[in-house]
Formats: sequence, structure tokens, C-alpha cells
Amino acid sequence: MTKLTAKAAGTFAIAPTPFHDDGKIDFASIDRLTDFYAEVGCNGVTVLGILGEAPKLDAAEAEQVATRFVKRAGKNMQIIVGVSASGFATMRSLARATMDAGAAGVMIAPPSNLRTDDQITGYFKQAIEAIGDDIPWVLQDYPLTLSVVFTPQVIRKIVMDSPSCVMLKHEDWPGLEKISALRGFEKDGSLRPLSILTGNGGLFLDFEMERGADGAMTGYAFPELLIDVVRLSKEGKRDAAHDLFDAHLPLIRYEQQPGAGLAVRKYVLNKRGVIASSAQRKPGATITAAAKAEVDYLLSRVARVDKRANLQPQASAAE
Amino acid sequence: MTKLTAKAAGTFAIAPTPFHDDGKIDFASIDRLTDFYAEVGCNGVTVLGILGEAPKLDAAEAEQVATRFVKRAGKNMQIIVGVSASGFATMRSLARATMDAGAAGVMIAPPSNLRTDDQITGYFKQAIEAIGDDIPWVLQDYPLTLSVVFTPQVIRKIVMDSPSCVMLKHEDWPGLEKISALRGFEKDGSLRPLSILTGNGGLFLDFEMERGADGAMTGYAFPELLIDVVRLSKEGKRDAAHDLFDAHLPLIRYEQQPGAGLAVRKYVLNKRGVIASSAQRKPGATITAAAKAEVDYLLSRVARVDKRANLQPQASAAE
Amino acid sequence: MTKLTAKAAGTFAIAPTPFHDDGKIDFASIDRLTDFYAEVGCNGVTVLGILGEAPKLDAAEAEQVATRFVKRAGKNMQIIVGVSASGFATMRSLARATMDAGAAGVMIAPPSNLRTDDQITGYFKQAIEAIGDDIPWVLQDYPLTLSVVFTPQVIRKIVMDSPSCVMLKHEDWPGLEKISALRGFEKDGSLRPLSILTGNGGLFLDFEMERGADGAMTGYAFPELLIDVVRLSKEGKRDAAHDLFDAHLPLIRYEQQPGAGLAVRKYVLNKRGVIASSAQRKPGATITAAAKAEVDYLLSRVARVDKRANLQPQASAAE
Amino acid sequence: MTKLTAKAAGTFAIAPTPFHDDGKIDFASIDRLTDFYAEVGCNGVTVLGILGEAPKLDAAEAEQVATRFVKRAGKNMQIIVGVSASGFATMRSLARATMDAGAAGVMIAPPSNLRTDDQITGYFKQAIEAIGDDIPWVLQDYPLTLSVVFTPQVIRKIVMDSPSCVMLKHEDWPGLEKISALRGFEKDGSLRPLSILTGNGGLFLDFEMERGADGAMTGYAFPELLIDVVRLSKEGKRDAAHDLFDAHLPLIRYEQQPGAGLAVRKYVLNKRGVIASSAQRKPGATITAAAKAEVDYLLSRVARVDKRANLQPQASAAE
Repeated sequence: MTKLTAKAAGTFAIAPTPFHDDGKIDFASIDRLTDFYAEVGCNGVTVLGILGEAPKLDAAEAEQVATRFVKRAGKNMQIIVGVSASGFATMRSLARATMDAGAAGVMIAPPSNLRTDDQITGYFKQAIEAIGDDIPWVLQDYPLTLSVVFTPQVIRKIVMDSPSCVMLKHEDWPGLEKISALRGFEKDGSLRPLSILTGNGGLFLDFEMERGADGAMTGYAFPELLIDVVRLSKEGKRDAAHDLFDAHLPLIRYEQQPGAGLAVRKYVLNKRGVIASSAQRKPGATITAAAKAEVDYLLSRVARVDKRANLQPQASAAE
Repeated sequence: MTKLTAKAAGTFAIAPTPFHDDGKIDFASIDRLTDFYAEVGCNGVTVLGILGEAPKLDAAEAEQVATRFVKRAGKNMQIIVGVSASGFATMRSLARATMDAGAAGVMIAPPSNLRTDDQITGYFKQAIEAIGDDIPWVLQDYPLTLSVVFTPQVIRKIVMDSPSCVMLKHEDWPGLEKISALRGFEKDGSLRPLSILTGNGGLFLDFEMERGADGAMTGYAFPELLIDVVRLSKEGKRDAAHDLFDAHLPLIRYEQQPGAGLAVRKYVLNKRGVIASSAQRKPGATITAAAKAEVDYLLSRVARVDKRANLQPQASAAE
Repeated sequence: MTKLTAKAAGTFAIAPTPFHDDGKIDFASIDRLTDFYAEVGCNGVTVLGILGEAPKLDAAEAEQVATRFVKRAGKNMQIIVGVSASGFATMRSLARATMDAGAAGVMIAPPSNLRTDDQITGYFKQAIEAIGDDIPWVLQDYPLTLSVVFTPQVIRKIVMDSPSCVMLKHEDWPGLEKISALRGFEKDGSLRPLSILTGNGGLFLDFEMERGADGAMTGYAFPELLIDVVRLSKEGKRDAAHDLFDAHLPLIRYEQQPGAGLAVRKYVLNKRGVIASSAQRKPGATITAAAKAEVDYLLSRVARVDKRANLQPQASAAE
Repeated sequence: MTKLTAKAAGTFAIAPTPFHDDGKIDFASIDRLTDFYAEVGCNGVTVLGILGEAPKLDAAEAEQVATRFVKRAGKNMQIIVGVSASGFATMRSLARATMDAGAAGVMIAPPSNLRTDDQITGYFKQAIEAIGDDIPWVLQDYPLTLSVVFTPQVIRKIVMDSPSCVMLKHEDWPGLEKISALRGFEKDGSLRPLSILTGNGGLFLDFEMERGADGAMTGYAFPELLIDVVRLSKEGKRDAAHDLFDAHLPLIRYEQQPGAGLAVRKYVLNKRGVIASSAQRKPGATITAAAKAEVDYLLSRVARVDKRANLQPQASAAE
């Protein structure tokens, strides 16, 4: 596949890692999941992100999972590999191996102990020295989970200091003004063009697009919605974008529960027949019967507007 | 007004503290805000909460603000006073003074350094010793902002150890299973009946009611919506409750941005003619022109379903 | 007393706040404590610091305590008042009132939620706007307890932006290189002269002096030791300074236990006959019989070198 | 080597991981370091601890390093392997592989996001399920660095629920009362006998032994001191233990600077001729010329009492 560039746009799905009920990696479901993302029209997939239970995999498994996605995606989609690690040796190993296997780029999140602006910029400088400056990379800005706060100025410095940084995964919260600030930097010439894809479960995608985002990078179980909202917004069809977004918002909101959201997403993807099991590796949240019923109710309500949410109980995912 | 009991239910608005543009307290707007909450049908109002910029007031101001709400509410609504403080002397002073002035109860949040279960239960034991066990009080459970995590078992212990604890302000996130767990404790007899009102900006009110909440306690700028959803849900009109809730959800979601939400709420309340200025005391977030336009757009969309959101530019709030 | 300037040097004791066993403020012990600090030769006293249980006092009490120290110290010593607060209104009230009563300056610590360099510098800018730029103030840099990390560059910016900032209370840990960096800034002309007094319980005072500190500001129960080490170090008597310091180090180390150190200090000050009770206000740590015996043993060992540690059981502190 | 049991006592050195200047692992220095620990009389060595820069190694390196220590130690000392990891798969891989290679046991620290008592006990339950209950393991209690706070009751529950837990690495701060509490549990029969070795850089070893610790597990660059203090204390020679301890305390204190301590220790071990380079892998602290001179001065002062600190500049470590 082609390497990631600062022109990347559209929808990159954040992929969960499918497991069998016993905790083993389910490679067949990885294939099905990859095909699913390609079929609905994703531009790329980000694997081994926070949603992907990456820390629960050992080093060999991480490489196997990422490589499987890469091979299956082929030329259809770009695969970005989350390589965040507690040390640069591990980060480098995974980054080099998966890029060699054909990945389009890697994503790096900061360790949670960084505080000052200098600590943050210093960390990414060392990280890129470690993995090599020939690998296109995505900066993940996610204070709610990572506890590291980037000002727009710090993001600019990181990007300007590292030519191989091509994308920001934006999920500060609140974050709308940050997008405006960064696009303002581009206009005043102090920041080179940068792809900005937004996360936060899609909860603010409607306005993030209007503020200048290039697309979505998140794990909502209906990537079709992300794709449509991104497209409608780029076409200038504001009301249509919001109408569709609002129909899904109750479910988007429901998925966006820290720690619990993955269980909901795996439940829906399993219900859609994409992954064979909704199991997570330990330690992981489970989904109660009450929560399943709530999701089912939300799906039925979404389906009144968007037929794609009209799911039949899955029959044969694992067959 | 009557004292707060474990039978409290319905909607308690979390009130912002109105300031003039120069940062002085706007007592006339406190009166108008109190009247507004009473007119739309709130059962009570919580003042000096996190939303209320309480830490920015000095001790004398805090008492003045709370007392003003209490006096204006009279017998129409119950006023709960946030008395969280860095020390018990300050907490006691404010609690005793405002209860003497007629408040219905007080609300206490934990300091952010508490970690173990014993530290948490020990803190509340000492707090109640300090303020006196004759004051009905509300336990605030808000990990996202306060960094203190309560298990359902710890909440039960606090409640069972303190007969004057009558209510939980529930805003764990995610929190649906916690409501179910607490109601389960009541069923198995290990927890006495407890009023549970939910916060989190109302973002999960639809399902929180279905899980057993008694009502809402949050600062959404349209308390009418909270009141209606609580009522419809209690009447068993599930679809109607969700239909109305979903119409407001895009705005509820927009308000629920940490640090920025208060600016949105003050903007809307100002636009509704309730408070004379949307100013916050320093340090405080401001609302940009872009954000105002987004809120206006959201209001116009809500108004298609709920005419109460059809706001004219305010004309005369401060006259 | 004279106002604090950037030429301040020597030893400023951090004073505990004496309480009676029932938690009431013990004003007689404040007088005795003030006299004690003056008699042993302290240049100043810092009151209402973290050690001073400041958050446990209500606003009126805080002013009373600080004023009592100020009045008693008269022209003998400079009193610095800790005015850190959760809001600027409270900070301003205490700062103005105690400066009017004759305090030499105030000390400000940052709130623990500050992260980025801009948040930190912005906070102090607003704080000084709030209290007025005519009050000499001390910047407290204490990451271990306050969770806010200042780079030397950020300290420089705060100092250069605020002419009324005259002193750094340095207690970063580790912090030796930070002193060297700041003194280096002074040498290269990018930082104006600044008084640097060091905290951390005195644990690194020996080397902090050698790195360029102007003195000590901490609460070790033998301020005589701090005074002597500061003096010996300034006289260039390196070995003598270390010899004396090392004799006290086992006790300095013992006091420097987070949360527990205050109990040790109050125990020793009570034993020395300075304060009438070692009680802390709730919530506070107590000192066990085992710990008391350990402190007594350490005192007896210090006394082999420094006779001032040869304490008789106190007889009449409160008489 | 024999498996670790609850009878373990004495001194277990926490080993740094030696690197060449270019960041490659220095296996020859591992051998020399192992021999050194054996020669001075350590009972065991803990490798891949926090001090050991474990997160900077990739999975293969971690296994190689631990195995090298194990092989070299042979029957002379017990090797404990730090297996803390962000996921159980990685933890299990390293634990099984190193135990197969002959390690005596493993050490597990909690991830920093654990808050409630239930989260903590649940984590260790799952960890032991993952690695297998046939591996003797050490519980690391280190709130200052790990942000997880264990009450004595929680430690007891973990120990009583997991028969393979044989040791506590105690480095709560303050922690003396915790040792007393745990020994009290043993006396009242609610806790089975448990080996308690203490860390915190040795800063409180003198009194920790008197409170009931079985020995030391820390990385002070003179393990001889730890060994002697543990021995003297067990022999009841209190004054002698303190005299020796106090002579080293200025250096112990100097080493105990978060983030900077490792640089000091590697500097001293290099100076002692044990490791060939004081290099750390990135990101790592360096030691300035000023700090080296301070350490040299401290060594010269220790050497007045303890000749073993009389170091000549190393000549031939790497030869």
C-alpha cells in the first residue's frame, strides 16, 4: 500500500482486535473485519490503537495482528499501526517490522508522565530518532485517556521539527477551537499542511468537519455513518450531514463510555456478523444483558432513519 | 423550605452563579434565575456546585449567593448548597449558615487526593462530624472531574454509616451499571432507600431513568427538557421520552465539554433572557464567535421539535 | 516590618499552626513560636504554608493566624503569608488584609490541575492581577505535592513578567540542577536577580547552598541547624557545614515523610516547649508511640554532636 | 537456584541493566555485576525492576538480560525477575521463560490506573491466573512512583488469596507503620508469614528493620552497607547499625532523587569498576559534572568511616 501523507483524508476506522472466547487471536475475524471496512468505503484502518487492546498483546502477537490487517487490506486501504510502547526498543521493533510488511504509517501516543512542553517535544524527538525518520507517523492527542496536554503551539513545534509527521489524530476534549487554531497556523504560514482526523468516538464529528478536519479516525461500529457525514460535510450539505449524524448520535453517545465502549462496539460488530465473538482479553469490561437491550433499542431507533442499522440477530459470523 | 429527604425526586437544576461583566456577583440575575427554575417546574436547585464557580467566591460571597437563592426560592423549591471545601472549618461555616438561612440540604464532593476505600469512607465520616449530623446531605460521585473512584460498596458503606446522607448525585461515567448495582443493594436489603439524581450534563438521562434514577440534577440550559424526560420516563412512555431527549441530545452533547460547557450554558441562559451577562470570573473559559454560531445552529435544530428552543435574541434581560 | 525583596536571604522557618487538643487555634503558642524563631535567629517566618494546615482554617481564622504572627514578629522578622487558594477572590482577600496588617510578602502555589507551560504562566499572571502588583510575592515550586512541573524557562518567564515576584521557594525534587540553571540565567542576563530559598524539609540543603541558594525555607524542628548550615556554607566552611548537617540528617530524613512529617515536627516542637500541643486539626496524621520512640532515639543521637537536641521532656509549655 | 519462599531474608540488590555507550546491552557487565553482588554477600538480586530500565527493553532483550543474570548467579544467589507489563500476555511470556531458565521468582507492580481496593485485588488475581499459580511472586508496593495505594488490609487480602505470593517489596512512603500493621496481622493470625524486604533506596532501612522487615531490596550502590545494617539490626546491635547507616545516609539520600538516582548509581558502580559504562538508554537522565563532584565528595566523606567507599578512579572495568 502507499505510504501515508499529509493529504490523507476521509475515514480511517479504528479496528478492535478480534479474540476468540478463550482469549486467542481470531485471525479469520481480522480478515472479515478488514474486508468489511474496505467494502463500506473506509480509506484506511488504524490497528493496535487504544481500542485495539494493544497492550494485552505480546510483541510477537502485535506484529502478527498488524501484519494480518496489512496483508488483507492489500492496495484497498492504508493501514496505520499503533506503536506506542513503554520503551523505544519495542516501539522501533514493531514500527520497522510492520512498515516492512507494508503498513502505510504508524501512530504514537505519549506516555502519561509527560508534563512540560519541553518534555513532550523531547519525547517525540527521541521517538522519531528511535523508529527512523523515514516512517510517516501520526501524532495522537488524547488528554482524557493519556493525561498529556498539548497546546496548539506544541503540536506545531512537533510537526515542524519532524518532517515525517503527517497527521494529527485529534481527540482533545473539548477540541473544536484546537482545530481552528491549527488551521489558523497553516493560514499564517507557521505550520505546514497537516492531515487532521478526529476521534472522540465521533461525538463531535459534525462540527469538527466544519472547523476544518479532514475526516474521522474512530471506532464507531457503523463506519458508514462516519463516511457519509465526512462526505456530506465536504460537499457543503450541512443540514443533511447533521440530520444523519443526529440519527446516530444516541448510539455514538452510548458507545463513548470510557472502558465500556469497546464492549458495546464488539457487541454490535458481532451482531453485524463481522467478528465471531465479542470477547475481550482480560482485563476487560463485559456487557450486561441490560446494556445489550439498551443497545438493541438504540439500534432499532437508528434504523428508523438509517436502514443499515436494521440488524438481524447475527446468524453465521463464526461459521 | 422543607429539609431534603431520601424521597427527593424530579429535577434539581444545577445553577450557575451569575456575574456582571466586571466579575461582581449579579444578585438581580440570581433572583431571575431562581424564578425561572421555579416557573419551568424544577423541584429544586443546587447552588455553588462545580458549575457554580464556587471556588472563585470568597467565604462571605459564597454565603451571600446561597442565601439569596434560598430566600428567593422560598417554599417553591428546595435549595441544596454545595459546601465542598479544602477544609472542614470552611465547610462547616457555610453549611451551618446556609441551613440556618433555610437551605434544604448540602452537597459534598471528595477532595481529589483520596485513593483507598478507607480514605474515602474516613473522609466523609469526618466531614459529617464537622458539619453536624442534623444536616441532610448529598454525596457527589464524579470521578471524571474529581479523580476519586467510589465502588457501589463504598457508597453503600457511606450511606449506611451516615443516616443524614439522603441523596447520591450520580455522575460516574460510565455509570448505568452503578445505578443498577445500588438499586440491587436496596432490593437485597443491604442499602436503605436513597434518592439518586443524575448529572453528567444529562448525557445519559434517558437510560439512567430506566435504570432506576429518581431524576436529574444537572445544568442543561433547558431544564424543561430534563423535567419532561424524567416525567415521561416515570409514566412509562419510553419512546416519547427518547424522542424528546434525542431532539435535544446534539445540544446536550455540545454543552458537555469539560471547561467549555459553562460558557455555552451561560450563553444560552443569557440568550433566554434569564441572566444579564454570560461572564465568568477569572480564570474562566470564553465562548468564541464560532462556538456561538454552532450553538445557535443547534438551537434552531432543537426548535424544529421543541418550540421552547426557538429563542429570539434576548432583548431585555438586564433592564 | 520591611517588605520582602529579591535580596532576602538566610533562614525563613515554615511555621506550623498550633492548635489546642480540641482543634481550636492556640494563639498563645503562636506567640511563643514566633518568639522562638526570632530568638534562634531566623530571618523570617512563612505562615499558612502547606505545613501550616492552611486549608483547614476558614477565611477569618486564616487572617487571624497570619496577623497574630505579623504582630508578634514586629520588626524582628519578616512574615510571609501563604495565600494559595482555590480562587482569586479568597487569595486577594487574605493577601490584602495581611499586607495591610504588616506582612512582608505572600507566597503562591499553583493549583494542581495546571499542565502546559501556558497554563502555568497564565495562572500566575491572573493571580497577580487579582492580588495587585504592589505585593512582593514568592513563587512556590513543589511538584511532589502540587503535581505542577515548572521548567527553569517557565520560572524565568513568570519572574520576568511580574516585577513583584522576588523569591522562589524551591522544592523541586530533584532540584540541584534547577538552581544551577536559574543562576546560569542570571549570569547570562536573561533573568533578573531572584532570591532562592529551598524547602524539601532541608534534605538537600547542604548542596543547595553550594549550587547557589540564598538560604532555607522549611519547617525542620531545629531551625538552628538550618541557620548554621546556611551560615557555614556562605562562609565557605564546606566540611563544617556538612559535618553539622550530617549529624542532623537522620532526623531531617525522618521528618521528611509525606503526611507524617508534620506530626513529627509538632511532637518535637512540643517537646522543646514551644507549642503547647502537638494536635493537628482533622483530617490529620497522628504519631504512634513507636514513632515517638524513634524520634527520641534520633534526638539522642543528634545530641551527641549538637547539644541543642538534648531535650528534656517538656514540662511547662502551656503554662 | 532454589525457588523463593516466604522465609527469604537478607539483602536482595536491585540491579541496574548495564548498557554500552551506544545503548546496546552490555552482557559482560551483567556478569561482573552478578559476581560483585555474590562476592559482597547479597542473598539475591532483583533484575528488570524500575531501576533496571525494564520498559526500555524489548521482549527478547528482557528475556536475554534476565536469563544472563540467572545463569551467572547459578546456585549462589536467587534472582527475582520484574515482570510488570502493560498486559498479561507479555507478563506471562517473560515469567514462564525466566522461571524455566532458573529464576527464583518474579515481581509484579500494579498499573498506575488502579484506584479502588477491588480494582487492585482484582488485578493481582488476574495476573496470577495469567502467569500461573506455581510461580513464587513478590508484590511491589510503591505508591510514590506507581500511584497505586495499598492499605495493609488490601495487601493481606492479596496475600491470603494467592498462596504463591511469598514476599512484599515494601516501599510505601511513609511506610514504617505499614510494616508494624502487617506484622500485627501475622500476630493476630489473619495473615500468614510473609517476607518483607524494603526499598525506598534504603532511606529508612534502619528503622524498617526495627519494625520487623526481613531485609533490604534496593539499589544502593554499596550493597555492603545494606547487608551490614540488616545483619547488625538482626543481631540487636542497634547503635552499631545506626552508626554505620548514618555514615552512608548522605549518599543514600543523594541517590534517592527520582529520575536522577539511577545516573548516580551507575556512576558509582562504574567508578567501582563493576560496570563498564554509566550510560542509560534513552530517554534517560544524565549526570552533570557538578553532580559527579558532589558524589565524589560524599564518597570521600563516607570513606572516613567505611573504607569500602574509598574508591580509586576506575581503571579497567571494561577491559
